[in-house]
Amino acid sequence: MNTKRLSVDLNSDMAEGFGAYRMGDDDAILKVVTSANIACGFHGGDPEIMARTFALAKERGVAVGAHPGFPDLWGFGRRNIPFSAGEIERLVAYQIGAAQAMSAYAGHPITHVKAHGALGNLTQQNAEVAMAVNRAIKAVDPSLVCLVIALGHQQRQANEMGLKTASEIFADRAYTEEGYLVDRKIAGSVIHDPAEAAARAVRMVRMSAIETISGKSIRTPIDSICVHSDTPAAVMIAATVRLGLEAEGIAVKNFLS
Amino acid sequence: MNTKRLSVDLNSDMAEGFGAYRMGDDDAILKVVTSANIACGFHGGDPEIMARTFALAKERGVAVGAHPGFPDLWGFGRRNIPFSAGEIERLVAYQIGAAQAMSAYAGHPITHVKAHGALGNLTQQNAEVAMAVNRAIKAVDPSLVCLVIALGHQQRQANEMGLKTASEIFADRAYTEEGYLVDRKIAGSVIHDPAEAAARAVRMVRMSAIETISGKSIRTPIDSICVHSDTPAAVMIAATVRLGLEAEGIAVKNFLS
Amino acid sequence: MNTKRLSVDLNSDMAEGFGAYRMGDDDAILKVVTSANIACGFHGGDPEIMARTFALAKERGVAVGAHPGFPDLWGFGRRNIPFSAGEIERLVAYQIGAAQAMSAYAGHPITHVKAHGALGNLTQQNAEVAMAVNRAIKAVDPSLVCLVIALGHQQRQANEMGLKTASEIFADRAYTEEGYLVDRKIAGSVIHDPAEAAARAVRMVRMSAIETISGKSIRTPIDSICVHSDTPAAVMIAATVRLGLEAEGIAVKNFLS
Amino acid sequence: MNTKRLSVDLNSDMAEGFGAYRMGDDDAILKVVTSANIACGFHGGDPEIMARTFALAKERGVAVGAHPGFPDLWGFGRRNIPFSAGEIERLVAYQIGAAQAMSAYAGHPITHVKAHGALGNLTQQNAEVAMAVNRAIKAVDPSLVCLVIALGHQQRQANEMGLKTASEIFADRAYTEEGYLVDRKIAGSVIHDPAEAAARAVRMVRMSAIETISGKSIRTPIDSICVHSDTPAAVMIAATVRLGLEAEGIAVKNFLS
Repeated sequence: MNTKRLSVDLNSDMAEGFGAYRMGDDDAILKVVTSANIACGFHGGDPEIMARTFALAKERGVAVGAHPGFPDLWGFGRRNIPFSAGEIERLVAYQIGAAQAMSAYAGHPITHVKAHGALGNLTQQNAEVAMAVNRAIKAVDPSLVCLVIALGHQQRQANEMGLKTASEIFADRAYTEEGYLVDRKIAGSVIHDPAEAAARAVRMVRMSAIETISGKSIRTPIDSICVHSDTPAAVMIAATVRLGLEAEGIAVKNFLS
Repeated sequence: MNTKRLSVDLNSDMAEGFGAYRMGDDDAILKVVTSANIACGFHGGDPEIMARTFALAKERGVAVGAHPGFPDLWGFGRRNIPFSAGEIERLVAYQIGAAQAMSAYAGHPITHVKAHGALGNLTQQNAEVAMAVNRAIKAVDPSLVCLVIALGHQQRQANEMGLKTASEIFADRAYTEEGYLVDRKIAGSVIHDPAEAAARAVRMVRMSAIETISGKSIRTPIDSICVHSDTPAAVMIAATVRLGLEAEGIAVKNFLS
Repeated sequence: MNTKRLSVDLNSDMAEGFGAYRMGDDDAILKVVTSANIACGFHGGDPEIMARTFALAKERGVAVGAHPGFPDLWGFGRRNIPFSAGEIERLVAYQIGAAQAMSAYAGHPITHVKAHGALGNLTQQNAEVAMAVNRAIKAVDPSLVCLVIALGHQQRQANEMGLKTASEIFADRAYTEEGYLVDRKIAGSVIHDPAEAAARAVRMVRMSAIETISGKSIRTPIDSICVHSDTPAAVMIAATVRLGLEAEGIAVKNFLS
Repeated sequence: MNTKRLSVDLNSDMAEGFGAYRMGDDDAILKVVTSANIACGFHGGDPEIMARTFALAKERGVAVGAHPGFPDLWGFGRRNIPFSAGEIERLVAYQIGAAQAMSAYAGHPITHVKAHGALGNLTQQNAEVAMAVNRAIKAVDPSLVCLVIALGHQQRQANEMGLKTASEIFADRAYTEEGYLVDRKIAGSVIHDPAEAAARAVRMVRMSAIETISGKSIRTPIDSICVHSDTPAAVMIAATVRLGLEAEGIAVKNFLS
């Protein structure tokens, strides 16, 4: 997937409500993105919102994936819950299966898997956790693409295991010199200006490299850009990034198409 | 499956613990039964116990199925939670997917689905709920056998939808004249004597009919006998039923074999 | 409390989010009401949002109460979960205790209890459930006021048990001839015009009677009017009801002040 | 409480089942101990089992306390869930309130608080967490005794805050040179011989010191000995420890009596 040029996918997490609770504007963001990561009921999501969102994504022609997280509704999957690697492997496998069933039910089967929140961050920085997620994907359905955070452990490992991968960057987040996301508590970690986020996205896709906070470049395949939907401002950034990419001749399409 | 003669399956619910909690003696009952219904994490069960039990069933050569229930850990799936038929359809689909993934992970794919507790009872008595469960199975994997309670709505419906079915009776429970289970609160509703349960099982399989509490027979296909594992006495009844069937020349084997 | 004239309390349910999930605009509605019913973590709410909302209510001078519901986060407490009366008694007692502790923690002790959603509706229509809630209040703290739905079982019972009560009506909901809320699915069940809701509230408080959908009056003590906060429109109705009452010389104050 | 001589309390955690799940033999252990720590519904426990166990403890004349833990039913409160100190303070306050209500409901009010599992271990080793638990107790009811692990942060802090404390040791666990429990994975960490556990308990109470694994003594007030109820062997150890203490003239009674 690393040979694609002048095209990039836009992905966003969704279906993260629970029962009567809503989270993010899935309807709005589905008009912008080319991949939807569907929460699987552990950090958010339930069978109702999963079925509804898979159906809506189908209608909009947006590719879908499983978005497994820690079983931590209270913490919305953003906390490192101390599970062993083996336990992570199994709780990811479970969630992939649930997403496969709900997407089959909606007539729009999943084609990728992306880990959520604290679990996703661990896959970048912790080789054991990355391996756990990869092993779960391989055991349940090795045809699924691993959508991974660029510059982390998961991609190389997955490729060695024979799994397909796509790697993502963030348009609206600053990067450390190691290629990690700058902590949200640090000033400048989040880019709020849509035009700036769009310009960054264009530069990074063109160079096939992320820009660190000091201005350095770190080369990496870039198959997808992650955008958010949790606030109206986030949806605006996502839409602007898409327009910016297209204005510069970069096609926005799913990494499998 | 209704053409089988002089053979019957023995099934039991298992993997119904949660985290540190245990429920039933899965190890003991797996030595007796020919089908294991694996809880899927809603009324009981978690990815750890699911993976472990699928692996153990594989080792023992016991066929496995998904055992979806209401999302009601507190009530262990034994209460009628007021979900709509559509919601039931989706929460069953979700659980089948989870069970497929965990059974694939363990290298021992599920071959049937049996609804748990209050949900199971509803499939016998409520045509809409029966349809919801059947539709979920059909949407997720129409090759899965519906393991249903004899004399209820689910079997005829499922057959009309082109799904395979197997129907079960209980060796240790009395039946009303309508073919429903006599309420546990009524004296005589539960048969505690292993020899009596075994003799009943033999008679019912031979006649292809259930015996009501008044002594009447109601003809029905019988593909499986449900036994319990929650107490040492229950495991003893199960083992005695198996020995009783085999002593009378009735083969005990999975309904698919 | 039934002797009060030309004054009425305004109450609203709040603190009904969970973890990262938000529900309603508690900040806005706390500027309007004189009683806040704080969710206790079963149908919504968690220790964080409870502590924060008790503190905010204290700052705003708004009296607070426990708002216990069924343990049903998925259904937001709006479904009849089949608990026995004894079980309801105990799960309400538990939640009152949790609310007492969190309100003591915030330095603003609770002074009333109001049952939520399906549990609240049951207290109006089911004498056994009404008794269960009353018994829980009596066992944990008999000085707490029972905030009840007018024209139901709970008030008379509570008074006979020596408990203080306050009874509430809804400004924006139509009533049946029996004094029950008209089902939300029926046209005309919900009043969307703020001015109409305010005029209704004034009439009902003046007459000390609810108006049924046919225009009949049913006399009842009215100590409080329940308003909602879940949408901007709901907050607008609440504010208009308050202004309407005050414009007509009806004081808006807590039922205990 | 540190001035007591030749008497000691025996405490055990209980009411740790959930719904249909059972954990430990509460009935058996209530015949042995003089303090019962009642789970509060977060790591285990529910309103039913709480009410039932408070009532049984009353009948047996056993003093009761709240036993708050992390909201982690899956992990049974044995994992460090990354909550902030402020969040811990509030989730402990919530649970103390729930226990107060349920114990008032059963007519047998709680007199102490003891943190469970991972939370308990953190109070020994992490001053911030110890302070969080102490602050919760102080805010909700400063008359409650803090039952703490000997040689940790919580006792000194609590005393400085004006809270009463009682400190506990384990009869059947080895201690490191720092006075921490030796990890269960290390050989010799758990003492399985009832007679040896009893002899150890007698020596430590007499010396008012814990014995480390190397044989060294570390002086500390000892007000209580923690015993387990999760296996028949554990109950046997508890009973033997009690008999051993009494045989040596050490009275076994609650730290408040």
